[in-house]
Amino acid sequence: MTQPFDPTSPVFRSHEGGKLVVRSTLPLTDRDALSLAYTPGVAEVSAAIAADESLAARYTWRSRLVAVISDGTAVLGLGDIGPAAALPVMEGKAALFEQFAGVNAVPIVLSTTDTAEIIDTVVRIAPSFGGINLEDISAPRCFEIEERLRELLPIPVFHDDQHGTAIVVLAALRNAATVTGRSLGDLRVVVSGAGAAGVACTKILLAAGIGDIAVADSRGIVHAGRTDLTPVKQELAAKTNVAGLTGSCEDALAGADVYLGVSAGVVPESAVARMADNAIIFALANPTPEVHPDIAHRHAAVVATGRSDLPNQINNVLAFPGMFAGAFDAGARSITEGMKLAAADAIGQVVGAELRPEYIVPTPFDGRVAPAVRAAVAEQARRDGVARLS
Amino acid sequence: MTQPFDPTSPVFRSHEGGKLVVRSTLPLTDRDALSLAYTPGVAEVSAAIAADESLAARYTWRSRLVAVISDGTAVLGLGDIGPAAALPVMEGKAALFEQFAGVNAVPIVLSTTDTAEIIDTVVRIAPSFGGINLEDISAPRCFEIEERLRELLPIPVFHDDQHGTAIVVLAALRNAATVTGRSLGDLRVVVSGAGAAGVACTKILLAAGIGDIAVADSRGIVHAGRTDLTPVKQELAAKTNVAGLTGSCEDALAGADVYLGVSAGVVPESAVARMADNAIIFALANPTPEVHPDIAHRHAAVVATGRSDLPNQINNVLAFPGMFAGAFDAGARSITEGMKLAAADAIGQVVGAELRPEYIVPTPFDGRVAPAVRAAVAEQARRDGVARLS
Repeated sequence: MTQPFDPTSPVFRSHEGGKLVVRSTLPLTDRDALSLAYTPGVAEVSAAIAADESLAARYTWRSRLVAVISDGTAVLGLGDIGPAAALPVMEGKAALFEQFAGVNAVPIVLSTTDTAEIIDTVVRIAPSFGGINLEDISAPRCFEIEERLRELLPIPVFHDDQHGTAIVVLAALRNAATVTGRSLGDLRVVVSGAGAAGVACTKILLAAGIGDIAVADSRGIVHAGRTDLTPVKQELAAKTNVAGLTGSCEDALAGADVYLGVSAGVVPESAVARMADNAIIFALANPTPEVHPDIAHRHAAVVATGRSDLPNQINNVLAFPGMFAGAFDAGARSITEGMKLAAADAIGQVVGAELRPEYIVPTPFDGRVAPAVRAAVAEQARRDGVARLS
Repeated sequence: MTQPFDPTSPVFRSHEGGKLVVRSTLPLTDRDALSLAYTPGVAEVSAAIAADESLAARYTWRSRLVAVISDGTAVLGLGDIGPAAALPVMEGKAALFEQFAGVNAVPIVLSTTDTAEIIDTVVRIAPSFGGINLEDISAPRCFEIEERLRELLPIPVFHDDQHGTAIVVLAALRNAATVTGRSLGDLRVVVSGAGAAGVACTKILLAAGIGDIAVADSRGIVHAGRTDLTPVKQELAAKTNVAGLTGSCEDALAGADVYLGVSAGVVPESAVARMADNAIIFALANPTPEVHPDIAHRHAAVVATGRSDLPNQINNVLAFPGMFAGAFDAGARSITEGMKLAAADAIGQVVGAELRPEYIVPTPFDGRVAPAVRAAVAEQARRDGVARLS
């Protein structure tokens, strides 16, 4: 997929010098301005915050600032490329936060991949930020890192590779069920992939009421009889696979309503052909979907991919900018399961009456999405009792 | 000095919402733009950096990005107020970087004050940045933190409270010597204060050729016979006080040419009166100089303070923006003693032929200063062999 380094190519020219800038919101061009914004005036603000830390939300930028944190171990299709190579991706992510929801974000790439060190480091720098977006940290470390940071920090922590994907998948799948005349709760789903996205998608689909989900990893269907399961997969085994399936992902597909691919594997056409009538195929591996779109369309009523050049793109950018914007609006101490479900509802509802098999999810550039997610998330934060602001 | 919290005051109104924003340099308003700046295009850039990390300087923002790092233990006149309360100061610092030299900076305030933890944390987030500006970290921890980070990191590390102050003091003192008809090397100097600024000022004055310096801390003159000295003060005792003085700061002032106050102490007029003819008084404590300016002018030919409402303000902003801009221009791996001396020379020379007792140092808003410092620092980095860029 990647090309040889060509500094004259449009891609490299667009990245020249990096993609972000920090600007002052105040002019500091004369002594009076400096004495307000810096010394001696700033001492009044610092003293006030020292006396009442809640004032930091009002008088610093942190209440609207996200740290985009990565150790560069699970970047795009590139894998473990380290912090420096991950930085262009994290700059892009920060740019998306700003452009889609006016949320400020700063990329922080780490020179450690040790779980405990990452947790310690994020805790120590956390007073600088209003929210933590974990990005491209490989499984299973990402699960423990997110869980511990959620326990330790009084601000929203969100692993976008898990929950951003899960939110958009749920939004799209609910609309796919509707457009094929089904109820979400009646779907039989096969999830291929038990990494960050697979685990989070499974959990949100369970939370949304889907009872029959089989998850497959590279060694086949996750079930309680397997002895090679990580703790996270043991939890999946307990919560999924009500039919008690064993065998391969292809085996699970026989009669399934939904294939959700977040694995970069390949599914043969013969397996796809054995799915239920009016099947739904979400083949999200990028750039090569697990099921070729032509094959998918031969056997499914609704097809979604991760690709921007095809209809029904499952793109996290529909979720994370509005998620943090809404959490910040509410002064949320954390991101609840309810806030994720509310975001999915908001995304799905933007499609509205235009729903059709080729339009189950808004496009990334639909300007209605981020405001809708933002409002829904802020409202749900208040309902869930995690909001500091009314 | 600080007022009760009044949200309607100009100071609080100017800090509302914080003082910084992050912006994208690329529009991400359509699919083509997104595919260049983010996925799939960004993967080419990440792959190229993974293969050759030096490309990160060209294709990320880190080569022009400073982390302003503080644990909030030694803020302005406020002392140990913690990270949240320090954040408005660090935002202001970042704003100054941008406005005075176009250098991007991000404040990182820390929830730890442990020396080893601060060092570890900065090392772990360092791949995100091109330079580290340590700020308002109390002595003596600041010395070890800076020294270890200089050893561990391949990028400029600069504790501004030490070296920014020292550079501007040297620039001003050289001009003060000239305007009073002396040679810098012949001055007899008393430094009051052996914290971050006092130690760094003493070192740069020694490096600039001043042989006779006595340093006093709150317990009196630092000399080798004292048993209460930290390692840093033991080093000062070995390098200063050639006259073998003991006693108080006031004792040392008898016959001295220069009083340099970086202590927030108070010097009685009787002691000032015993200084040499044509004395030079730099009373830098803010907002209350160690020697009242009226008293200083009765006994000294040249007076400087830290105050913006008086002539000859010793303000770090003359040094740090150009210092990092020049280091970045040269791709400097570190900040050398030579680069600090070059910065001081450049600042002093801006005064030029207009030199007079009330104008020994440029004003903070003199637009010639940052470009002069920048050019001198970059040139010296190349001379000193620490430049990656020619």
